[in-house]
Amino acid sequence: MTLEEYLRDRGQEVDRWLDKLLPSEETTPSEIHKAMRYSMFAGGKRLRPILVVAAGEAFSVVPELLYPIASAIEMIHTYSLIHDDLPAMDNDDLRRGRPTCHKVFGEAMAILAGDALLTRAFEVVAKLSVPSDKQLNKIEIITEIASAAGTVNALIGGQAVDILSEGKPVSAETLDYIHSAKTGALITASVRVGAIMGGANPDELELITKYGNMAGLAFQITDDLLDVLATSEQLGKTAGKDANVQKATYVALHGIEESRKRANELAKSAIEAVQSLSKPSWALEEIAKFFIERAS
Amino acid sequence: MTLEEYLRDRGQEVDRWLDKLLPSEETTPSEIHKAMRYSMFAGGKRLRPILVVAAGEAFSVVPELLYPIASAIEMIHTYSLIHDDLPAMDNDDLRRGRPTCHKVFGEAMAILAGDALLTRAFEVVAKLSVPSDKQLNKIEIITEIASAAGTVNALIGGQAVDILSEGKPVSAETLDYIHSAKTGALITASVRVGAIMGGANPDELELITKYGNMAGLAFQITDDLLDVLATSEQLGKTAGKDANVQKATYVALHGIEESRKRANELAKSAIEAVQSLSKPSWALEEIAKFFIERAS
Repeated sequence: MTLEEYLRDRGQEVDRWLDKLLPSEETTPSEIHKAMRYSMFAGGKRLRPILVVAAGEAFSVVPELLYPIASAIEMIHTYSLIHDDLPAMDNDDLRRGRPTCHKVFGEAMAILAGDALLTRAFEVVAKLSVPSDKQLNKIEIITEIASAAGTVNALIGGQAVDILSEGKPVSAETLDYIHSAKTGALITASVRVGAIMGGANPDELELITKYGNMAGLAFQITDDLLDVLATSEQLGKTAGKDANVQKATYVALHGIEESRKRANELAKSAIEAVQSLSKPSWALEEIAKFFIERAS
Repeated sequence: MTLEEYLRDRGQEVDRWLDKLLPSEETTPSEIHKAMRYSMFAGGKRLRPILVVAAGEAFSVVPELLYPIASAIEMIHTYSLIHDDLPAMDNDDLRRGRPTCHKVFGEAMAILAGDALLTRAFEVVAKLSVPSDKQLNKIEIITEIASAAGTVNALIGGQAVDILSEGKPVSAETLDYIHSAKTGALITASVRVGAIMGGANPDELELITKYGNMAGLAFQITDDLLDVLATSEQLGKTAGKDANVQKATYVALHGIEESRKRANELAKSAIEAVQSLSKPSWALEEIAKFFIERAS
């Protein structure tokens, strides 16, 4: 199996579970469920849930537990995109090549659709039925996800600092904070949750956390590189937009070559962390490589 | 103790716990925590958390478990107010007599502060430490809260239908849906959670649920009455606003007298449900009376 095949296969399985776990478009009130599903099935790469799955597979977690949790994390990621795209935030008209949620359903429905995906994520974890011969500490998983989605070194905190920094000169420290909080926290939580579900010991969890931190930052730097290097068509969103609004990016601060070098070093460290695990994970290694190859 | 004293005492205790459970204003990023605390401590009546406490007290739940869960429910209520007040939603400048969150911190920070309170609510429940001699099914509580805050006969669904109905003629059925979903679901969850924490049996839970449904609807009808009868000053928000934007209200549809009558009947049924419990609850009875007396 190539990584491309792996990503496609696991991504399709995530989609199948998401479809099962979200209320249908016919469920009342239909408009909010349409808005949730519109953004949920807008062609995302499913990287975070695939990371949950890849880490969980390394620790022999069964699919019927792994995919619902992976889906919950993708719901949180999608909620954050819907809210980030709002006029009051990044004001983006395009996401993954399609009009953003608020362009199609209006701002009110987009705000509510984001709220609903965040809420549904926790409900999915809480309601997950665990086979009688399996164990799952759902409270540990909810704690992990809620912390990563929160304000302290986490998703919402990163977006807040990002918004507050627009149009201002940004220090390397602030930029590191934005990256690690806004993107890194949920990526790290994704691999951690997979490992926790499989009963990883503290040493293993430390290595997985290192992998998540390194790979997450490599991913974000590569995203910044892509924004500079790619055209809008390739990207599916407005290219060069970050530079236009003087948004803090790794590339703007450190330049293209230095950014590439840093992303490569980070991916290498991430791979080394996985190789130190007693459980080998071909998928986690390949995903770290893929993160940086996108912009090479 | 009078009900007034009870509400003040329990309300102050909720405030003390909320202060403990939310990140301080000094915690980075400070701006988002300021926005969260601004709306959280804007003089709310704390009715929902007091309902958790009153129901929990009837079932002998210890305060150190009851108040954190009550606080989490108030965080969810406050998040919903912050988002409802946004320009894209109800566009309210005043809430509880003070400028709304987005008027003070801007729309982006208000959206994020709402997201953060919702997220923090689940984190607080998940992280609550339970004394070794006590038991608490935190997953059951999270399920209850997430369902009530969701889209299906729940908070977000009610707000979605409310928004979509503005400026249109609304049927009595739709109005009932809006009330029971937008306000009723979280009020019912509040008393249910208190009872669940105290190990209520199915019969007791059914009576408590009935109390929540009846008292919740009585509360909402009285709120509609107050909007018509009170001045802005008394209300702390723009009075008559619902009528101005042709918003569906019980009073607009059924008239003042019929609304009063219905609220009285509902409060009476709520009180009867509590009186059928094996555990008497003076507080739950008095609160149901108070709900309707506000507008008599």
